[in-house]
Amino acid sequence: MFVLGVDPGLSRCGYGVVEQIPGSGTRRTRTEAVALGVIRTDPEAPHAARLATQMHEMQALIAEFRPSVVAVERVFFQVNARTAIGVAQVAGLAMAAADAAGLEVAEYTPTQVKQAVAGWGGADKDQMQRMVGELLALPGPPEPADAADAAAVALCHLSQAPWASP
Amino acid sequence: MFVLGVDPGLSRCGYGVVEQIPGSGTRRTRTEAVALGVIRTDPEAPHAARLATQMHEMQALIAEFRPSVVAVERVFFQVNARTAIGVAQVAGLAMAAADAAGLEVAEYTPTQVKQAVAGWGGADKDQMQRMVGELLALPGPPEPADAADAAAVALCHLSQAPWASP
Repeated sequence: MFVLGVDPGLSRCGYGVVEQIPGSGTRRTRTEAVALGVIRTDPEAPHAARLATQMHEMQALIAEFRPSVVAVERVFFQVNARTAIGVAQVAGLAMAAADAAGLEVAEYTPTQVKQAVAGWGGADKDQMQRMVGELLALPGPPEPADAADAAAVALCHLSQAPWASP
Repeated sequence: MFVLGVDPGLSRCGYGVVEQIPGSGTRRTRTEAVALGVIRTDPEAPHAARLATQMHEMQALIAEFRPSVVAVERVFFQVNARTAIGVAQVAGLAMAAADAAGLEVAEYTPTQVKQAVAGWGGADKDQMQRMVGELLALPGPPEPADAADAAAVALCHLSQAPWASP
């Protein structure tokens, strides 16, 4: 089962495709990173063009990796309203693209993601990156941070979905 | 020249396709309503499905009417943050769909729309609906209100774009 985690943002949208591999015999179920990255858009480009780029790239990721689920970090209204609008819009594009492709869509709050991955809702960026690296058996904390955040959302979904385990 | 005006909203997204018909001889340039309506989504449906419906319907409107421009009312952070997120997301979908179709995209604030259509930024809903009806030579104020608001955004764009006149 593939889960595409999304950490939405207009300038930088993190994505992480995580595969859950069922265990058998003495082997435990494990998770592997299939693709981690960031979709960037040029802050100098028109707003609509940046949104169209994010939509196009999200559709391309869905077409390439065919995840079962797209898990998106839920948007909250932040101090910087201008940034929050872009975040909300990219989250909306990801969810619309996922639903249009017939995929399940799940949203998780930042606190839910932190609790699921690091064990407590107050975990900081460094702790989260380290835990994502460990859970995905990577040689070190994944870079860049937005990709690690997106992978954390995917891991959060897998941890909340026990029906996905064998 | 066709302009598609959009008054974004998740439950109800108003749209208004307005055509500007250049004058000739003694005939003045005039504007006509080509299509006015509302894209509705079921508040009981999952959020992602509602976004996908809005995206799909917006793409269908663009394909049907082939506007040159999509003019969208600019989103502000409102008292109701939950509503504002949906509004921002639908505005984002409309802009992404327009840019992906190669169209020009313009955003106008509610005050700009009111000033352009009713002559002052403090115009109320009734005044706006009446003015939209007059500018489009309709037999009465257009219904529903969301469609009138969307047509007002299209009219605002035409008023700001003198290069579009002959």
